Amino acid sequence: MRIDDLPIRDDLRGQTPYGAPQLDVAVRLNTNENSYALPDDVVEAIGKAMQAELRDLNRYPDRDAIALRTALADYLGHGLTVANVWAANGSNEVQQQLLQAFGGPGRSALGFGPSYSMHPLLALGTGTRWIGALRDPDFSLNPDKAVAALEEHDPDLVFLCSPNNPTGTALDPDVITAVLEAARGMVIVDEAYAEFAREGTLSALTLLPEHPRLVVSRTMSKAFGFAGGRLGYFAAGPAVVDAVQLVRLPYHLSSLTQAAARAAVAQRDALLATVEAIKEQRDRIVSTLRERGHRVADSDANFVLFGVGGDQKIAWQRLLDQGVLIRDVGLAGWLRVTAGTPAETDAFLQATEALK
Amino acid sequence: MRIDDLPIRDDLRGQTPYGAPQLDVAVRLNTNENSYALPDDVVEAIGKAMQAELRDLNRYPDRDAIALRTALADYLGHGLTVANVWAANGSNEVQQQLLQAFGGPGRSALGFGPSYSMHPLLALGTGTRWIGALRDPDFSLNPDKAVAALEEHDPDLVFLCSPNNPTGTALDPDVITAVLEAARGMVIVDEAYAEFAREGTLSALTLLPEHPRLVVSRTMSKAFGFAGGRLGYFAAGPAVVDAVQLVRLPYHLSSLTQAAARAAVAQRDALLATVEAIKEQRDRIVSTLRERGHRVADSDANFVLFGVGGDQKIAWQRLLDQGVLIRDVGLAGWLRVTAGTPAETDAFLQATEALK
Repeated sequence: MRIDDLPIRDDLRGQTPYGAPQLDVAVRLNTNENSYALPDDVVEAIGKAMQAELRDLNRYPDRDAIALRTALADYLGHGLTVANVWAANGSNEVQQQLLQAFGGPGRSALGFGPSYSMHPLLALGTGTRWIGALRDPDFSLNPDKAVAALEEHDPDLVFLCSPNNPTGTALDPDVITAVLEAARGMVIVDEAYAEFAREGTLSALTLLPEHPRLVVSRTMSKAFGFAGGRLGYFAAGPAVVDAVQLVRLPYHLSSLTQAAARAAVAQRDALLATVEAIKEQRDRIVSTLRERGHRVADSDANFVLFGVGGDQKIAWQRLLDQGVLIRDVGLAGWLRVTAGTPAETDAFLQATEALK
Repeated sequence: MRIDDLPIRDDLRGQTPYGAPQLDVAVRLNTNENSYALPDDVVEAIGKAMQAELRDLNRYPDRDAIALRTALADYLGHGLTVANVWAANGSNEVQQQLLQAFGGPGRSALGFGPSYSMHPLLALGTGTRWIGALRDPDFSLNPDKAVAALEEHDPDLVFLCSPNNPTGTALDPDVITAVLEAARGMVIVDEAYAEFAREGTLSALTLLPEHPRLVVSRTMSKAFGFAGGRLGYFAAGPAVVDAVQLVRLPYHLSSLTQAAARAAVAQRDALLATVEAIKEQRDRIVSTLRERGHRVADSDANFVLFGVGGDQKIAWQRLLDQGVLIRDVGLAGWLRVTAGTPAETDAFLQATEALK
């Protein structure tokens, strides 16, 4: 008995599960994790916060995660409050809930590829028709092209990703405002990597007051080094938060997740202290690869997309053979590498010598 | 700007979020939690297990939760292995994934009400058409009636609930086998309350070897006293586990959840020690209310459904006024009460005196 012998949905037949290979390799730079383990002080603070929940684990958690959402609103600033913020088990769940509330059967979502490959999968999983518009060959997106795609397809949701994964570059703010003005439906700006953006990069959070259909999605998996804790969230108008509560699973966020994430947000100075160090390594990767003649996309994230000058599958394997695991995102001729510690950058840059 | 001013799905307009009132009352017997706080030994074991994960929280969790699924398979017995078991953040998420894989747009799911009220909401949230068949007025379901409903509606999924929430009674095994033989699609038996069943009650786990389209859903929220930890799981053929991996969100289960749940399963003797005490209180509630002339449904769960002899909304408020919060599940003339500690039963039985 195999999957295809079961009455599975037709649109899932032949698919394989999403996910990068989880290989046991010395240098893992394939999933844009934060390479820095949590500092002792933070470990202690999170441990204490969770310990305080354990005795009463027989009780359901706060269904509305009020304390955590309040802490996240405080972190984001921009005058946001608990009523503007919603949280779930990773930004994938946040975005799935948005698709359930505003997409679903008979509705459509549009994104500009190459971008985060979960967006179309989340659409598929919620019965939302996915419209894959394209960026320019240099991965840029200009306002006119974005608006033209909206006018052609009239989607119910638009996904923008800034800084964009897997290319790394933040969107021109003019694209976001043009899309907001042209869109009939919801506009989700996925800012998973916002904390790594180069100076002067505008967050879509600044646009929230005037745009009630704008949602800015964030995660604690990257800058906060909280990938294992699974906490994604969004900021939007209060009505959007009310709307996702109609589709969220009751008690979706455990008491332990809420406590751990609250403690991590409270310890943000210690956790986000890694961001500048990671940006340095990112800029070092960009400049070194460019000096060596590689094509490299500008990066506002904790990763770099670079051209390998040939078949990226062969290049990926060549790096893996040297103990450096990076990501083949399926873009012919390109690979994506996470910026980690200086030692990881050393290993990566040394391994890439072999690509010349 | 309110929900209805947003481009929300039409079938969500006018809905209110699912959930019992979370009121600050002395005696809370409304959500079928386990009333016993976790013992010190278990608190310590779970705390240690989570502490071991904290330093590396910057890394994503094991996407496949192998160690936890192995532990759950061992707990279930019946020759099950890791390949038969899948876990998620509560049995709601497990069932949502099953609906995404086997239901969704253009497909239908059938259940026999009154039953767990999340089943139709999960169907709605995944774009699956819900067919609400009915039990007999005495809440029973017989094989002929069940099969007749299947033949009439030909659903893609069937939800059975045994012991049934909110009525409390386990299904006649003949109903389950009749449904399995008649069903073209998947059959999900929700056994959230299985550990509380009266002696001799058959689990649908015994039917798994012959039925590749059978899924038995369980939770750690009830007998394990792990409601705040959010861990639901199912047992089924390996192909079903493969199928939900096509729709599960990557890294859906945090490292902390996996570690805490593993420790709780390892501490199961201590945690499940409360089950017999709870069953005693359940049986005491059943017999006392019957002695007082109430109609009471047989219970294989940690709750009791009883007739109030009038408007249940008024009876519910009368109990709340005395500091006892129970559940109005929307069944005219009936209320549901969780069986908790002896002191909680005392308070409940004393408060119900006022209903006579």
